Amino acid sequence: MGAIITLTTDFGLEDAFVGMMKGVILGINPGVTIVDLCHLIPPQDIAGAAFLIHTSHRYFPPGTIHVVIVDPGVGGQRRAVALQTPLAAFVAPDNGLLSYVVREMSQRQAPYNLVHLNRPSYWLPHVSATFHGRDIFAPVAAYLSTGVPLNEMGEPIQELVMLPQSGPLRQGEVWLGRVTHVDYFGNLITDFTPEEIQELRPGATLQLSIGSQAIQGLQQTYSEGQPGCPMALIGSLGYLEIAIPNGNAAQSLGAGVGTPVRLEFK
Amino acid sequence: MGAIITLTTDFGLEDAFVGMMKGVILGINPGVTIVDLCHLIPPQDIAGAAFLIHTSHRYFPPGTIHVVIVDPGVGGQRRAVALQTPLAAFVAPDNGLLSYVVREMSQRQAPYNLVHLNRPSYWLPHVSATFHGRDIFAPVAAYLSTGVPLNEMGEPIQELVMLPQSGPLRQGEVWLGRVTHVDYFGNLITDFTPEEIQELRPGATLQLSIGSQAIQGLQQTYSEGQPGCPMALIGSLGYLEIAIPNGNAAQSLGAGVGTPVRLEFK
Amino acid sequence: MGAIITLTTDFGLEDAFVGMMKGVILGINPGVTIVDLCHLIPPQDIAGAAFLIHTSHRYFPPGTIHVVIVDPGVGGQRRAVALQTPLAAFVAPDNGLLSYVVREMSQRQAPYNLVHLNRPSYWLPHVSATFHGRDIFAPVAAYLSTGVPLNEMGEPIQELVMLPQSGPLRQGEVWLGRVTHVDYFGNLITDFTPEEIQELRPGATLQLSIGSQAIQGLQQTYSEGQPGCPMALIGSLGYLEIAIPNGNAAQSLGAGVGTPVRLEFK
Repeated sequence: MGAIITLTTDFGLEDAFVGMMKGVILGINPGVTIVDLCHLIPPQDIAGAAFLIHTSHRYFPPGTIHVVIVDPGVGGQRRAVALQTPLAAFVAPDNGLLSYVVREMSQRQAPYNLVHLNRPSYWLPHVSATFHGRDIFAPVAAYLSTGVPLNEMGEPIQELVMLPQSGPLRQGEVWLGRVTHVDYFGNLITDFTPEEIQELRPGATLQLSIGSQAIQGLQQTYSEGQPGCPMALIGSLGYLEIAIPNGNAAQSLGAGVGTPVRLEFK
Repeated sequence: MGAIITLTTDFGLEDAFVGMMKGVILGINPGVTIVDLCHLIPPQDIAGAAFLIHTSHRYFPPGTIHVVIVDPGVGGQRRAVALQTPLAAFVAPDNGLLSYVVREMSQRQAPYNLVHLNRPSYWLPHVSATFHGRDIFAPVAAYLSTGVPLNEMGEPIQELVMLPQSGPLRQGEVWLGRVTHVDYFGNLITDFTPEEIQELRPGATLQLSIGSQAIQGLQQTYSEGQPGCPMALIGSLGYLEIAIPNGNAAQSLGAGVGTPVRLEFK
Repeated sequence: MGAIITLTTDFGLEDAFVGMMKGVILGINPGVTIVDLCHLIPPQDIAGAAFLIHTSHRYFPPGTIHVVIVDPGVGGQRRAVALQTPLAAFVAPDNGLLSYVVREMSQRQAPYNLVHLNRPSYWLPHVSATFHGRDIFAPVAAYLSTGVPLNEMGEPIQELVMLPQSGPLRQGEVWLGRVTHVDYFGNLITDFTPEEIQELRPGATLQLSIGSQAIQGLQQTYSEGQPGCPMALIGSLGYLEIAIPNGNAAQSLGAGVGTPVRLEFK
């Protein structure tokens, strides 16, 4: 079966945790292609993983199965769930990891199915209390990739646990947002999208404020900025991004996830 | 050929050492699936790699070929060897890396074959003196995955170099063990298994001592512990594990590989 | 299609940048095998990536496609290019990344083709200004792997941007070279090859000088050296290498990329 399964976890790369999941998957579907999306999600950073799967899943072919495991509640009461959309399927603990994807489906009025994964016949025979990634989520994803319908592996549900809505707030002619992600290069990804920018005053000069730093205008590319000077552009993840060419914006501006950003036009 | 080859090394991720091994393998068997188990084994930590392959290989389908390379003696007198068990094959330098797997086979009275890999016709034409992972072990694993019998690639041998036996020692009603692995989350994996715990006094309260810290009782899941307080449970690798919920037990307890752990019932 | 695509980038492992490239590739050619060569190239280190692809590509089967992305000029004037040799194809920004490979082809008088990738019909429909790895290079490599000829994806060109020639210089009976790469173990890879060593006085004793340290003779393997003492050998990448058995030569000698090394015979 030529399916694709992606893996996103906070398991790090120093152990064989991810490798064991791959062994389980290949034991069920030897023909599947497994892609590592990221295993260096900061430990227990549910919001970070939710943002990552939101911004990256659209680059995979239709039918791709995404396994997302950041699971501080493993072994406790939290449910194992799956989400099927027209584009992809997602398998994850029910703790907010799929918040962005579900909201996107709702906004687009796209149909989607939610399932509580509660049929142990699709799990490993022995389920540990601390590693459901290997014992529950990996086999479920593998069976899904072989064509087992999601509804056979669990019961329909209506809602998932959701992270608090985090989009920017409009106050008159000002948008108040925040940094939602810092990438490897130290670029600050905010929650402003081109839509919000358009909504205000296209044509006027955009002005951003982050801490005591003001940034004027929107560039197209890093190379249009001045080395060492903060600049703004629409980044490759589809959000307004604050960068310092040849530098690290997060370090230089002392900013990180949650830092407030103010957007207006003057 | 739909075989699986896993790779475990101390080569790190900053060079193309692992990538070159994959190129060699795919040149011999284009259809093989290659899985990275771990490349961040601490440099020259033979015991760590031996423990990792022991605890993870059982999650792969029968017939999987595991290449394990931690090789401080590369280019010297140490042999290149292979081990075939009913479940899997292993290719490695003969320096103790396969100790756990061999002991497990012996304990289960399972049959296994050992081979000294000394037939250069199954190696790369030019063998460097410092990178047998690429020049010997990768091609041997690849030929094995195409169906070449192990016996064609070397001569039968009777024994491998073994690490000192490391299991816990019983002294009357007390077991003396140690930490054998610290995982990415700082959990301390000990050499106690459920079998040893059962052997003492099931029903009484288990008491662990590590340094000046005492831990009472065995939990099922991390979520049953108190945040910040050391707890014990049987971890996903099948060994008794000391953890601190939402914390790092290794750092908080100042413990690491080799730290003594005492187990008794009261 | 059973083709192989390798990926070499400075994107790190903390984001899904590499994963998104794989999604794009698999969407175009589901049957391709993708191999990560390295994603921890130091940010914007073009010379380091150029050396890595030079020393590793020969271990892949003929026809392999190598994508190399270190791209400080993304979105600016630099071209996207491809290079086809008898052994492999390379897709990269035109900033020096392919210097070693092109020089090797020239020295061997091997034929090769250069193409300016300027046909957007082989790119993603929406091309971001900051992530051409995903939007241009990944789809071009994928189409190439499906059999689309390079000439359909761009126009022939005659030359690429080249890094300054970096080989060692001969001054009478002395070669002056430098460290070109420091590997994960701290070994110092120089730009001296066996050819240059042969050219001087085979039979006499080789003497290397790096900083105030002198090293006499050439060993075959690490295990012939003294623990803690600097030694020289021809390393697995084909270059003269300075190592400290069981140690880290870069740290102990205070050396790094660019450190001068002097080679003579006495």
